[in-house]
Amino acid sequence: MTYAIGIDIGGTNTDMGLVREDGKIIARANIPTNAYTELQPYIKDIMGSIAKLMKDNGINVIEGIGIGAPNGNFYTGCVDNAPNLTIKGVLNFEEEIHKYMQVPVVLSNDANAAAYGELIYGGAKGLQHFIMFTLGTGVGSGVVVDGKLVHGSTGAAGELGHAILIPEGRQCSCGRKGCLETYTSARGIVQTFCELRKETPGYSGELKDVADKDITSKMIGDAANRGDAVALKTYEKTGYWLGIAVANSVTFSAPEAIFLMGGPTKVGEPLLKPLRESFKKHLLNIYEGSCDIRMSELNANEVAILGAAALIKMK
Amino acid sequence: MTYAIGIDIGGTNTDMGLVREDGKIIARANIPTNAYTELQPYIKDIMGSIAKLMKDNGINVIEGIGIGAPNGNFYTGCVDNAPNLTIKGVLNFEEEIHKYMQVPVVLSNDANAAAYGELIYGGAKGLQHFIMFTLGTGVGSGVVVDGKLVHGSTGAAGELGHAILIPEGRQCSCGRKGCLETYTSARGIVQTFCELRKETPGYSGELKDVADKDITSKMIGDAANRGDAVALKTYEKTGYWLGIAVANSVTFSAPEAIFLMGGPTKVGEPLLKPLRESFKKHLLNIYEGSCDIRMSELNANEVAILGAAALIKMK
Repeated sequence: MTYAIGIDIGGTNTDMGLVREDGKIIARANIPTNAYTELQPYIKDIMGSIAKLMKDNGINVIEGIGIGAPNGNFYTGCVDNAPNLTIKGVLNFEEEIHKYMQVPVVLSNDANAAAYGELIYGGAKGLQHFIMFTLGTGVGSGVVVDGKLVHGSTGAAGELGHAILIPEGRQCSCGRKGCLETYTSARGIVQTFCELRKETPGYSGELKDVADKDITSKMIGDAANRGDAVALKTYEKTGYWLGIAVANSVTFSAPEAIFLMGGPTKVGEPLLKPLRESFKKHLLNIYEGSCDIRMSELNANEVAILGAAALIKMK
Repeated sequence: MTYAIGIDIGGTNTDMGLVREDGKIIARANIPTNAYTELQPYIKDIMGSIAKLMKDNGINVIEGIGIGAPNGNFYTGCVDNAPNLTIKGVLNFEEEIHKYMQVPVVLSNDANAAAYGELIYGGAKGLQHFIMFTLGTGVGSGVVVDGKLVHGSTGAAGELGHAILIPEGRQCSCGRKGCLETYTSARGIVQTFCELRKETPGYSGELKDVADKDITSKMIGDAANRGDAVALKTYEKTGYWLGIAVANSVTFSAPEAIFLMGGPTKVGEPLLKPLRESFKKHLLNIYEGSCDIRMSELNANEVAILGAAALIKMK
């Protein structure tokens, strides 16, 4: 058995895992990302944690270190000006890590890592063509063509959350309007619910006394699964929108499957039923029967580390 | 110098060319596609034409035969139920051709062939990531990732003309609504012009006496270049729509360039100016400066044969 390290860098925490080649996470560690403003001490502490993970588990050799990070660039091994990190600028992770350990270091963004994790350890094993949509605060994606992750010319391929779904539609945090993310992210779902509730004067459902700013997509999901009409309508619209985006993505690479993951997908049928209907309605006929929508087979609390560790398999 | 045969199969004509490896078409021939209802006699006459092309030019050896055809399938070497051909069914070109000549035979659809022609012989030489949009009666596309044409799981990747631009928008010939093709194909441009003319009661431009059914995108383009206000407005809208689609396509593969070709692009600035503005407005900021819009560098009357011949380079 061989081993790799997967690192998931978030704005708050940095999670690390020692991953066996069969996809089992042997041991984990974490440090607070936002306690650092300089790269060197941050890398020093990461490498200290990794050394301990290896020593505690009797592992002397690892295949490499894979890192999923916001704005992580596959080509340069750097994190480029990630807005949500307290360490600013272009951060050369590969170079700094090599001061401690001469192993392959591979970086990519979180959604690309999730897609690659699905390919190496999850439900996409053996597939040549698939697309992963990750629904969370935003919407990310990773695209696999001919068994390889698509990085594109800059390393920033696979930002389908920022493909425009509705021209001149909802304002997006990226500054443009109508991005998929504004409709099908957790925030988008909350916005849809609040809009629908406003249009439903007699609404007396379980969320009637919760202020707009306090509503989460989790609450709306729970309400939908208990039959709340406005929450159900919210997911009907969300599924409709996501189905168009998913069908559109098929015209690009004719994938064998679309994978979904992330908190907002956990609601289940209230989202998945209208999603499948919309996908069927909006899929170009030549793709009928060649592509289906599947849920990620990786555990939600493991995917970030597994995805990062999987990146090593690209070297 | 090596040579290849490129064949462009249209509903009316089948054009063949003997292509030198530097992209020069040495000689051409053609037969009427719609004179045939069976594959065997059709292939017999194609192979007769090819034998003559080779003999007349003193060529004894060719690298292979590349074919651009509606519904041409790269994986199977077949044309699959092309609606506009008089020869019906699944047509195994590769098998039939091999009865005459044991050379590589590669099929793909016309837009994929055009993209590959641009890569091998045209303005995309040396690029690793680009997307070709072909505007004509419909809108086709071809996607190149890591220097390779994307075929996808079925061979039918790259149908961006049928990505939905406006949900529940214009009726498309594919049966769905709002496809890019309904807005930016020659037919889409005519529809936009006719709609705008109707909304402009005092229209006294040069097309005022031409009935809707007689208007072509070429007429509208000429009128636009002579300052016709409704024609100019038509291209403003067309450029706006195409700019969104092009910007959306960048989120997929982060290409170095988008190429355009086809009759409707020949109008020039009336289309290109609003297109560039819309592209700039709708491009996600992380791609700024990394991707631009270019015109195909291949001659319009050569691209189909060059693209088909280029396909051989994939073998």
